[in-house]
This record gives sequence, C-alpha cells and structure tokens, in this order.
Amino acid sequence: MEYVRNTWYVAGWSSEFGRSLTRATILEENVVLYRKSEGGVAALEDRCPHRLMPLSKGKLKDDCIQCGYHGMTFDQDGNCVRIPGQEAIPASAYVRAYPTHERHGIVWIWMGDAEKADPNSIFDLPQFTDPKWSMHHGDALHLKSNYLNVAENLCDPAHVSFVHPTTLGNSASEEVPVSTEKDGDVIVTSRWIRDAPPIGFFQKFGGFTGNVDRWHYYYLHPPCVAAIDFGSADAALELPEDKRDEGVRIFALHFMTPVNATTTIDRWMHLRNTAMEDETAAPQMDEMFRVAFAEDKVILEAIQEEELRPQSRRPIRLAIDKGPNFYRRIVEKMIAAEKQPDVETTGGASQTAAQ
Amino acid sequence: MEYVRNTWYVAGWSSEFGRSLTRATILEENVVLYRKSEGGVAALEDRCPHRLMPLSKGKLKDDCIQCGYHGMTFDQDGNCVRIPGQEAIPASAYVRAYPTHERHGIVWIWMGDAEKADPNSIFDLPQFTDPKWSMHHGDALHLKSNYLNVAENLCDPAHVSFVHPTTLGNSASEEVPVSTEKDGDVIVTSRWIRDAPPIGFFQKFGGFTGNVDRWHYYYLHPPCVAAIDFGSADAALELPEDKRDEGVRIFALHFMTPVNATTTIDRWMHLRNTAMEDETAAPQMDEMFRVAFAEDKVILEAIQEEELRPQSRRPIRLAIDKGPNFYRRIVEKMIAAEKQPDVETTGGASQTAAQ
Amino acid sequence: MEYVRNTWYVAGWSSEFGRSLTRATILEENVVLYRKSEGGVAALEDRCPHRLMPLSKGKLKDDCIQCGYHGMTFDQDGNCVRIPGQEAIPASAYVRAYPTHERHGIVWIWMGDAEKADPNSIFDLPQFTDPKWSMHHGDALHLKSNYLNVAENLCDPAHVSFVHPTTLGNSASEEVPVSTEKDGDVIVTSRWIRDAPPIGFFQKFGGFTGNVDRWHYYYLHPPCVAAIDFGSADAALELPEDKRDEGVRIFALHFMTPVNATTTIDRWMHLRNTAMEDETAAPQMDEMFRVAFAEDKVILEAIQEEELRPQSRRPIRLAIDKGPNFYRRIVEKMIAAEKQPDVETTGGASQTAAQ
Repeated sequence: MEYVRNTWYVAGWSSEFGRSLTRATILEENVVLYRKSEGGVAALEDRCPHRLMPLSKGKLKDDCIQCGYHGMTFDQDGNCVRIPGQEAIPASAYVRAYPTHERHGIVWIWMGDAEKADPNSIFDLPQFTDPKWSMHHGDALHLKSNYLNVAENLCDPAHVSFVHPTTLGNSASEEVPVSTEKDGDVIVTSRWIRDAPPIGFFQKFGGFTGNVDRWHYYYLHPPCVAAIDFGSADAALELPEDKRDEGVRIFALHFMTPVNATTTIDRWMHLRNTAMEDETAAPQMDEMFRVAFAEDKVILEAIQEEELRPQSRRPIRLAIDKGPNFYRRIVEKMIAAEKQPDVETTGGASQTAAQ
Repeated sequence: MEYVRNTWYVAGWSSEFGRSLTRATILEENVVLYRKSEGGVAALEDRCPHRLMPLSKGKLKDDCIQCGYHGMTFDQDGNCVRIPGQEAIPASAYVRAYPTHERHGIVWIWMGDAEKADPNSIFDLPQFTDPKWSMHHGDALHLKSNYLNVAENLCDPAHVSFVHPTTLGNSASEEVPVSTEKDGDVIVTSRWIRDAPPIGFFQKFGGFTGNVDRWHYYYLHPPCVAAIDFGSADAALELPEDKRDEGVRIFALHFMTPVNATTTIDRWMHLRNTAMEDETAAPQMDEMFRVAFAEDKVILEAIQEEELRPQSRRPIRLAIDKGPNFYRRIVEKMIAAEKQPDVETTGGASQTAAQ
Repeated sequence: MEYVRNTWYVAGWSSEFGRSLTRATILEENVVLYRKSEGGVAALEDRCPHRLMPLSKGKLKDDCIQCGYHGMTFDQDGNCVRIPGQEAIPASAYVRAYPTHERHGIVWIWMGDAEKADPNSIFDLPQFTDPKWSMHHGDALHLKSNYLNVAENLCDPAHVSFVHPTTLGNSASEEVPVSTEKDGDVIVTSRWIRDAPPIGFFQKFGGFTGNVDRWHYYYLHPPCVAAIDFGSADAALELPEDKRDEGVRIFALHFMTPVNATTTIDRWMHLRNTAMEDETAAPQMDEMFRVAFAEDKVILEAIQEEELRPQSRRPIRLAIDKGPNFYRRIVEKMIAAEKQPDVETTGGASQTAAQ
C-alpha cells in the first residue's frame, strides 16, 4: 500500500515509552522505541543489519541497543558502536534512525525524509494548554482496516445516526444535510441539528433533558489526524456557530497510525470544557467512546474484508461523500507529490482554527 | 473455481430462515437471506453498493434491509428505496436479487441467469409426499473439501467397506463389483450384496440378525444432489430389484452447496419406510449418519489438503471410478455449455425414477 | 526451497517407530514410516496414487499399508499388491519407497536417488560405541526456521556469549576470537577460553568452582549434521588441545531435518565422559540443553520472520561469519552438483576425527 511518508504520525502516548524496548509497526516498517536517559524518545529500525535480528529483542545498554544474537551495539542515532570479535566497524553497520517529537503527552514520529521533519507542522490546538479545558488521553484502538477507510469515517457525520444510535447519534439527524468545505488541505464537514432531543452522550454530560441544538464539526487533516468538535446547548439559547464555547463542548481527537495495508491503530483522546473538577468525567467519557468506537470497528473491519474480496462493479458515491471524496484526492496528491523529487511538500497537519 | 450456475442449490432448510438476516456464502458469493412477512425467502447480494458494507449486518425494516453504515435501504427485489440525505436514487443503487423456491422444507436458490430459473427443474421424489414414508431433515455438514470430491464420494459405493466398516458397510462387500449406468445426466451406481451379515445400520433398524440381501443405489444428479437408496431384506426372500419397498428401505439425500474452492456444505436428510410410528427412529438414524459422515469428512478433508500440495504425477483411475468419471465429464460439459451464450442449458436435477 | 537430496537425514529416533503408521514431512515430502515385523523401518510416499489419500490414515496389514479410502494395498517396497474390485494391477499403481538405515538408535532416511544411498556415508563417531562414554537421545525441537539458519547457528561459537549467558556461555568469551577451518567439506569452528570462570553447565557437571580452561569445537557436516565438542578442565592443568578427554567433555549432536522452507526439526542428543554411573545426569543435561536451545529457538524464529519481510538492503557479514560463509558455499555447491546428471556426488557426513 502507498502512504504519505513526509508527515508526523503518532507513535504512542508519552506514557507508553520507558527504559525498555518497544516494537511498533508503522507504514509496514518495524521500529524499536525507547526513552533516552536524558528524556526524549529514540526510534530505530528494528532489524540488525547483520542477521536481521529484531533489535527490540536485545538489551538496552545506557542509551544504546545491544543485539541479542551477536552483541552488535547501536546508539540512539543508529550508528554501530561495537562489533564483538572485531575492531573495525564497516560503514554498512548502521540502522535507520527516525526523528521523533514529544508534545502534550504525545510522541510523534517522522517516517519520511529526515531533513524535512519540522516539528512546527505537528498538529496542535490552543485548547491543549488552555486552563479552561481538560485533556485526557484515551486508548489505542487496533482496527483491521486500512487507514483510508478509517479516515473516511472521520469526515462523515452522516454515519452517526445509523452506527451510533444510542451514543453519538440518534434518528433526529438522519436527513439533516452535511456541509462540506475545504480549508487548505483540511476538510471540514459539519452540521447542526437544531431543537432536537439530546443524544446519549449529552444526556450524561450536560444533563440536558429538554431539546438541544447539537453540532458536529469534523476537521480532517490528511492523511491521519482528525479533530471532531461536537457539543450541545439548550435549544432556547439559539446558539450561533461562533459561540460554541458557551455550550457543552468536546473535542474528540483521532490519530491514525497505518500499520499496514489492512491494519490501523486509531489512538483517541478528548478535551472538554465541562465537568472540569469531576474526576470521574474522563473515565466515564472513555467508556462512552469505547462503546461508540467499537461500533465503528465492526463497520470498518467488515468493509475491509469485503474490499479484499473480488469486486464485480465499482462502488457508488452519494451526496454525503463529498468529504471522503476530497480526502481521497488530497491523499493521492500528497503521495504523488512525494514522488516528484524537486517539489517541496508538507503533509503535516497544522493548527485547527477552532473558534 | 468454476461452478455450474444455472442450477438450483440448497440455501438451507426452511427452519433456518426467519425475520432476521442470515448470511450464506454460495459459489464464492455472499448472500443475505430472510423470510418475507407474507412468507417465502428473499435472497440478496450481501454487499451495499456504496461502501461494500454487508447488508446482513444491517436491519430488517418491514421487508427491506437498511444498511448499517449510512442507512441505504433495499427492498426484496434488490431495488434501493431510500438514501438518507438525498432525494434522487441513482440507477446504480441496487443489489442483485436471487430467485428462491421452497418445497418439502427445503429452500432452494438459483445463482445463475434469473430468467432460466424454473422451479420444475428442482429435485423431487414421490416419497417426499407419500404417507407410507417419513421424512426427516438432518444437519448441515461443513466440509473443507471442494464439491467435486464430495460428489465423487456420493457415486462411489466401493468406499463404504473401508471408510464405514461399522455403520454403512462391512467387509462382505469389499470385492462385490459396482454397476454404473447413466440415466440422462443422472449417474446410477449400484450393487447388491446377497446373503451376507447385516451392516450396523440394519441391525438396529430392521432388527436383522441372520443374513440379508443388501442394496445400494446411488443416484447422483450433477452437479450437487445425491439420493442414496439403500436397504436390506431377509436373504430368504431373495428380493428382486423392483420389490425394494418390501424390505427396509432408506433414502439418504445429500444436497451439496459449494461455498468456495475448498469448502462445501453437505446438507443431508433422510426418508424411511420403517419405524413410522417410532419417534426415536429419526434422531437415532441422525446419530448413525453423523458417525458415518464424520468418517467421510476425515477422508475428504485429507485429500483436499493433498490436492493443494504439489503433484509430481497424475492420479490413477480404477475400475470403481466409472461413476466419478461420468460425473466429472458431465460437470465439465455443464460448465462449458454455460459459456456458450446461445445454447439453452438446464443444470437442474429432475425427479429420480425410484421404483 | 532447494535442498541437498543425496544425503542421509534423520527421520527419528528408533524409539519413535513401532507397529503403527507415522507421518513425517521431510524436504516438503510427506512420508509414512512404520517398523517392519522382522525389524527395520519402512518409509513410503504418504499419498495413495488413486485419490491422493495419505496412507498414514490407513491400516497396517502385516507389512503392507491398506489405504483408508478404497483399500488399495502397498507393500514395504511401495508395490501395489491389491486393488479391491479389480484383478489387474496397473504399472502406475505404486508409491515411492525411501531407503532407510538404523544405527545407534537413530533412523536415517535417504530422500535422493536410491541407488546412491550408501550407509557408509552416514555420520558416525567412535564415542557412540566406546564404553568410556555414555550416550543419551534428547528431543525433537521444532523450529519455525529454514535449515540454513539453524545450521549457521551451529558453526557459530560467537553467539553463545549473548544468546546463552546463563547456560552455555558467559561474558568471558565475548571478545575471544573464533578459529575457522575446513576439513574437506566439514567446517570446524573453535575457540578456547583460558583461565576464566566456568559456565553454568560445568558448574553443575564437573563441580568446577575456580577458573577453568573451556573449549568449543563445532564440527558442521553440511548440510544437516553438527557435532559440538565442548568441555572444561581446571585452568591449573593448562590442558593441551589433544588431551580434551582428560577434562569433562561433552558431545552435543544436532541432526537437522528440513521440513519445508520455514520449518526444521532439530533432533539433539548428547554423549559424555563424566558422571557415567549417575542416572540423573542425562535428564539433568537434557533440562539444561532445553533451556539453552529454547533461547536459540527465539532467535531463529525471529530472524526467519524478518527474512520473509521485504528487504531494503543486503545483510552485512562480520569477521565471525567465516564458518557460516563456508557453510553456505558448500551447500550451494552440493545443490548445484546434484543438478549435473553425470557428476558423482556424496552429500553424506563422514566420521568426525575427534581426538
């Protein structure tokens, strides 16, 4: 499968890395990761160049890895610093090192040309550091689905009524049209469901019992970051679009890490402007998201299976597919651009202009 | 793998279908089946034309299926009747519908050209509706074997002595020659084992203790229906061929449904002219058949595995293979005929002339 | 995968074969083995030439196998002696028979041209029959690894320090150079670690507490036999190379049987010149070897997995790889020689000149 390489992918939450060796498979490459003694996370090609032994089965020695087969030792930059039984270290004795960057409890990795790895292009939100907001890191959801289908699902408000009828959607929205726009390469799909019963999520968080106005803004940053801004406010307030902070507002963030052509890890986290002092709120939200995302998992894995079977005709596209259509074209453009050696490309996600 | 398409296959017993959605894989195609509110079974392509979601994971709404991803809805004929979020329904918004027919508690499906689906060509027996006979539907036996090998086994009386020594055969028949004839495209392999000890089955049903005359008539209707007429009578009666109803006589029916190149479902049922009032007879027969067919399963799955391995020489054919040889040639002829656009073909099984 | 065919492989220990049918897969071929009534082991192609049924699922009748499907019967030479239902036995009704030879409790099989199968070329050691030595047959270790990587590991003393730090090696040897020589096609890799703490094995067997001289001689007989001569003696003795019998000396023998391109069975046994009267010594040694060889298994299976993944560059070779390099070239030469129809080849292992 083809992937955008010159972009930042999430390798894991900061809490996942310590002074032991962790293997991750990203864009079909095996990477070994560990926290360095002075902080920061090292990421190396997980294969000794001698007999192909995964370095993640070796030992961490200071900030170097000693291979578990013959003791070849590599430093955090991938340079070989020891070959037991010989003095000379040949030029071919190295492993690839991947740039990483850590911010807001998230470890990002760059799988493309190292010289293009600019931390300023990493996805960010002002709410990460805003004291009126509370941030919580969720789970790593393993999906037997390629990343394209996962991403389509994240610029597709229309599925919510049918896939998540008891958590994130209800039948009130079945026929409400979706607005789709592009902000540079960011795809924004949104809709407001005005003066309707609250969905399960906002019955619990917000305590709404009467009708509410409910919004969904899906900001999809190709290839693999999605920020979903959704919330509710008492319908009597007739809340305008730019006053969403006056309602109960949530950001659900999804960081997709393509493992291979049929597997993606979707790491999700959330930010909220409600129940700031309530320590039970984050785990309760986690639980509701787990139920909802398990519903997506069923869908995504079923269609992945079908895609691998013979196709006798082309799938059809509907009015609701404007966002997914934009997404596919942008990803194709990014992949094509990386094949042009002289063209400068940036696949990174930039800050969402969330008002 | 190639299959005969213009023929009736068994989709299941009538009892398998109700007001829920059932997936079946037949000739490598996924089909969703459900019982319609006015009766009869609908069978649709199990794949939404939008995002390939299996419709069997959706919801039955009256006699329509609503897709579980975005709510596209299809009626029992495969026509799309609703697309949430848009008015217009494009011509490409449909799924294939398969003709079905239900008779004697069996649901048949036609995987080929719908206009050729003639219910009169469905396999039938007068004993199905004869009050002197009792009918009982058995199991769906899943075999990791292609249908050709399953069918060969069902026009092959010779294997019984070696594969089923304690149930359907014994050593008395090891050297008794097999008679093989063709009645149109129906292959009839048969033999009588005269004046020999009864097999296990007829010790139990019939209560024979002394020597019996035992017969086997295998009627194989290519591609996928087999009726095995077997029975026993006291050897002293010297029963002629056309008086089999005076002995204890059983029909074991096998309906093979090819799933894919390495899997077949063998649905079996039986009819008997003995122990009509005994409610324990059918379950006891089921149990004996289960033991015997589990013995076939071991054989068929072992040879399927071998067929998938490299072959260094051609298998040899023996005198007992006359029936299987006929079968292979008829199936090849049927498949070739379906590739001739102007030639009328009928692959259906017609009524067995059981005397 | 390509294999040397004109050589003796181990089919199993003598204790593995009796009056029942055993299937073994060797060089991707299925073989059925059984002990003949007058002794000796028969080895036949495990596939009936009629319907490909594995003969190992049939029945042993005297020294013949009766196929479990239709009763075709083959004698110990692979000749068909019965076809139920017909008199004539066609010339094509046979299965291949493989030469075998049994010695020292080991059953050897020849997978190549039968006329070249010379038992004199079977690997042997004078210690097998020397009353000062005690022989013990160990386990059949199943490795998800091709035989080439298993064999490399057995002419590679350098890995011991890193893979077996608590059993067969320790850090004292990390930088001790390896001597590599060829004796005909036998590769001899060796080293002495002088005046160093004893490894775990010789703390237990030998009771050494002070420093010892320790040796390793790996005799690799391509393609698939390895004899590892290792031992220890009190460092004060300053034992010369040709007096190893005066120390505590062990032979660990490895007989690799390639199953297919990704699986090898490594049958190992050992001989010792110590603790001759101690009945607990052999099972205790077994236990230590099991721990050590499980460590090799982790390595070998991990690199096999990596070899199956895409490679972006050639593996590098180190100073310690002289033995493995010899081995690869000799196996390539043997395989190439077998493709030359007129050239006489011997792939068998000859007796090790162990002093």
